[in-house]
Order: sequence, then structure tokens, then C-alpha cells
Amino acid sequence: MKRLEDKIRECGEVREGGIVKVDYFLNHRIDVAFLGEIGQEFHRLFKDTRPDVVMTLEASGIAIALATAQAFGVPVIFAKKSESLNLDKDCFVSEVYSYTRQQSYKIKLSKRYLNKGMRVLIVDDFLARGNAVEGMLELCRQAGAEVCGVGIVIEKCFQEGGASLRAKGVEVKSLAMISSIDLEKGIEFAPNPTEEVQG
Amino acid sequence: MKRLEDKIRECGEVREGGIVKVDYFLNHRIDVAFLGEIGQEFHRLFKDTRPDVVMTLEASGIAIALATAQAFGVPVIFAKKSESLNLDKDCFVSEVYSYTRQQSYKIKLSKRYLNKGMRVLIVDDFLARGNAVEGMLELCRQAGAEVCGVGIVIEKCFQEGGASLRAKGVEVKSLAMISSIDLEKGIEFAPNPTEEVQG
Repeated sequence: MKRLEDKIRECGEVREGGIVKVDYFLNHRIDVAFLGEIGQEFHRLFKDTRPDVVMTLEASGIAIALATAQAFGVPVIFAKKSESLNLDKDCFVSEVYSYTRQQSYKIKLSKRYLNKGMRVLIVDDFLARGNAVEGMLELCRQAGAEVCGVGIVIEKCFQEGGASLRAKGVEVKSLAMISSIDLEKGIEFAPNPTEEVQG
Repeated sequence: MKRLEDKIRECGEVREGGIVKVDYFLNHRIDVAFLGEIGQEFHRLFKDTRPDVVMTLEASGIAIALATAQAFGVPVIFAKKSESLNLDKDCFVSEVYSYTRQQSYKIKLSKRYLNKGMRVLIVDDFLARGNAVEGMLELCRQAGAEVCGVGIVIEKCFQEGGASLRAKGVEVKSLAMISSIDLEKGIEFAPNPTEEVQG
């Protein structure tokens, strides 16, 4: 998604350790109109998979899931990270290791909202080592739900998550594929197979 | 908002201690079409205040803020709760006590996204004791931003938050006002001044 690459080049903030922050339009401030374009693009890429629901993980995935679900006309379900006292006890649970926070945490989804045979489109903001997506796939496995695909806004191709998921047969499509992030050289993008070939 | 009261009666789950969970359409699974109606209703109630931005607190406020910001055509900014290593160091910070989690936590908003004179519409899912809203008001005070109003999806009128904020002159408007929550009697609503008088 050319517009996304431009936006990352323009507003992304590069940090040490291969990190790029997109707080200006996605993860702290949200550019609502642009988010709508992201939702439309996921719809274009996954419309043939006919999802019943869009799944994500709180908190940064929620806005993306919502824009995508609007494009499809289906509900959102989001896995919760916290140990909130109010969370339904009857949940599917899996564990995710966060490199950002340097700790493992549980993600949970109520058994009421994820059912056997349900067609699930998973979306998230970033894909790096793939732990969050693996955690969501595990929730779907426990439920017997069918994963129609995984839509990622920004994939870091220099980390193994995307390759590892694709090797397992998971349909991963990313709107921007970053091949390198360097404090001096900035951000470089890999060719993206989701781009429409212009005639 | 009559439709919201009906939805809370129909799908809200009453718990001990004056708690009602609306996980079915707002806080775990999101009914995207209905969320759009919530955004439109906040637009109707606050359109004369001309906000530059809609502010909320992660995670449960994000979807509501987004639907509201879509109706206004402005961006969302959301305060972050976590001590993420990636969070901008240059932030406005305030503290919120959560009765649900029985602990205080910091909320932070980058100084880049909240500026002096900016007109801010604050929205959130629940208003009970008012701690989260007070925390967001404090962020706006630190920035010198102007709060045009506070839009709440569900206010618990039997707790003091709403009355206390209104006594301070804050323009609080809630789409559903619950006067009591009882395990046996269920949920009762107070008359809501935001309802349009039908001619």
C-alpha cells in the first residue's frame, strides 16, 4: 500500500533495535480517514475469504480491526491481555511473549464470542517475530474456528514471524513490508506482493 | 439513547457490586453498526462544541473514540496506561485509581499530540467514580487544552463521578444513565436529559 509506505517514511520515528514508531497516525494519535483506507485495503485483499468476524488483540489492534470490520460489515472480537477481575472466567487462553515489554502475558477470549466453524480474519498493527499472531491462532485452534487469513499493517521482514507463519500455510498479507530499519539510513521497504500490478 | 438502554437490558450481564458487563456489543465483541450509532449520537450532542480531536483512554475507549471521531471528521488521541518501553518520554502524565483492578496506574499522552488551545472532546465507555475522566482532564490542564465536553456511553448515577464533574462545570453527557444495578431486580435507568423530546 503505497500511501502507507509514504506515511511511514514521512511520520515514522526510527529507534534503536529495528523499531519504528507510527504514533502519529496509528498507535497514539489515529488518523481516522487514513485508517478507513487501511480497512478498505484489507477488504480488497481478503474479500473472497468471507470472514464472519475480525479478530485482534487489545489495545493497538482495536482501531485497525474496527476499520476492517466496517468494510466487511461484520463484528470485531478482541482478545484481552489484562487480568481484569471483570473478565469472563470461561475463556480460551494462550500465552504471548512480548519483546517490547520483555515478559510473557496471557491473552484471553470469551468462549461465547469465538465458536467452532466461525470464519476469522485476524488483523494486527505489527508483525515481527509473530508471537501475538501465534497467540491468536492458538485461540482459534482451541475454539475450532477457521482462520481465513492474517492482515498486518506493518511487517518487519527482517524478523522471522511472517516467513514462519507462511511456511505453516497461514495466509499472511501485509500492507507495508519493511526490509530494514536503520538509525542512519532510515527505512527500506521490500517489494510487496499485495500491490496491484498497474497495467 | 433508547436503543442503548434496550441493548443494555437485553445483553448486559449484571455482576455483584453494581457491575454490568457489556462485553457482547462494546467491550470484548464490538457490534460495529451499533457503535456507529453511538458515534452519531455523540455528534448530535456535541456538534456545537466543534472539537479538534476526540480523546480517550486505552483500551476500552478506543472503539468509541474512533466512531465519534468519524462522525466529526477529526483525529483520535488516546492516553496510554502501560509502562511500555516504546512510549515517548516527553509526555503529559497523570494518575488514575482503578477500583476494578484495585490499583493506581499512570496514564500518559505525548506532548506532540495535545496542544495549548486545542479543543478536546473526551469520551469513555463507563463513568462511575470518575477517576479515568479526572485523569484525562488533568492531561488537558497540563497541555492548556480546552475541554469542550465529556461523552460517556454508560453512566452509573448511583456513584459520584458524574455529579462531581458536573458540579465543577464540566459538560458531561451520557447516552445511558443507570440508577441501580441489582442481581435480582436487574438494571434501572434514570431519566436522561440528552433524549430528544418527542413532539
